Amino acid sequence: MAKVKVVEQVLKANDQIAAQNRALLDDRNTLAVNVMASPGAGKTSLLMRTIEALRGRVRVGAIEGDTASQVDADRVATTGVPVIQINTGGGCRLDANMMRPALEQLPLEEIDLLLIENVGNLVCPAGLALGEHVGVVVASVPEGDDKPYKYPAIFVAVDAVVINKTDLLPYLDFDVAAFRQLVAGLNPKARIFQVSCKTGEGIDEWAGWLAEMCTRP
Amino acid sequence: MAKVKVVEQVLKANDQIAAQNRALLDDRNTLAVNVMASPGAGKTSLLMRTIEALRGRVRVGAIEGDTASQVDADRVATTGVPVIQINTGGGCRLDANMMRPALEQLPLEEIDLLLIENVGNLVCPAGLALGEHVGVVVASVPEGDDKPYKYPAIFVAVDAVVINKTDLLPYLDFDVAAFRQLVAGLNPKARIFQVSCKTGEGIDEWAGWLAEMCTRP
Repeated sequence: MAKVKVVEQVLKANDQIAAQNRALLDDRNTLAVNVMASPGAGKTSLLMRTIEALRGRVRVGAIEGDTASQVDADRVATTGVPVIQINTGGGCRLDANMMRPALEQLPLEEIDLLLIENVGNLVCPAGLALGEHVGVVVASVPEGDDKPYKYPAIFVAVDAVVINKTDLLPYLDFDVAAFRQLVAGLNPKARIFQVSCKTGEGIDEWAGWLAEMCTRP
Repeated sequence: MAKVKVVEQVLKANDQIAAQNRALLDDRNTLAVNVMASPGAGKTSLLMRTIEALRGRVRVGAIEGDTASQVDADRVATTGVPVIQINTGGGCRLDANMMRPALEQLPLEEIDLLLIENVGNLVCPAGLALGEHVGVVVASVPEGDDKPYKYPAIFVAVDAVVINKTDLLPYLDFDVAAFRQLVAGLNPKARIFQVSCKTGEGIDEWAGWLAEMCTRP
């Protein structure tokens, strides 16, 4: 029982800090999007493409979560948008408390859309609030069309699912209809986007959806 | 301080149970291999190919770890080898205690090589002993060649790295030499294999390595 109590207290503390983060973001009129995925699904590439697609329309900022290294933050920084790296020191996900110093360091009043790249992991980030307004999971074609079935918790928790690497569809056995049906069964309200960060296919629709949410009064 | 204490006790308890699992495996003369990877890297396909390659030479059994579902166990069962599914109920990795009932249910005296497919996750399973003799991480080409840099803990902890989906090398920017160099920098003793579970390329070398360990006195 003692262990359960500790976990409950930790989660409760996380939710309280997440609510504070959310209040800060709301006060600065910044829409925050928590981008989750397996390692190598293309989260950073999606951020790069999104920043490019929204240039001149939406002011973007980014937070990069990783267990180690700052290669992702370095890549995103080349776009010129403000970016903060959070290293979890081996931890399997970002949490609300890790977000606080990053939010304090970012010029939120100049950021309409904050893209948060979580640690590459389809299990741990599911359902752990950071203070974000929107949750997204990126699922890439090479991972296979059964991922919603095997990692349901994260697919249930998000507002949108991005199928990435559609340029590889000709070379792989990925049944898009079956994947969409699995997602719809778990989470009927989730928006589903199909993109290729390599070719740029589908990016406009995805970025347009984000832009619309940022401009909504 | 209280929280740290709990974590330490949990890890200590895990190591004790892992040692018991290991003693049981040694007693039955079964070599256990912990196969770890991102979701969709091809762990189950690698198990299927390995079982096929070793048929008639090495008696294989399998344990399938997943957060939910039993699709992997169903797939492996089609090969005819004994297989047990462990569902972690959302947990991000197998642990030594989850292994116990599975080991008790398997006919270990008839299994030379026990392939344990861990939950798809590059962070959580790193360094958590199950009682295995050999640790392996599978890294697939579409994930990108920077994974050792971003998830070092798991690459440091293993005995071998399997690069899977080499059939996709022509379509992707994956620098094999750079990847090998990153692994060598983190873990100079790790064996590196290159395979395609789609075409079967490289499977003989990988399976031969496992077979050799099983027959070693």
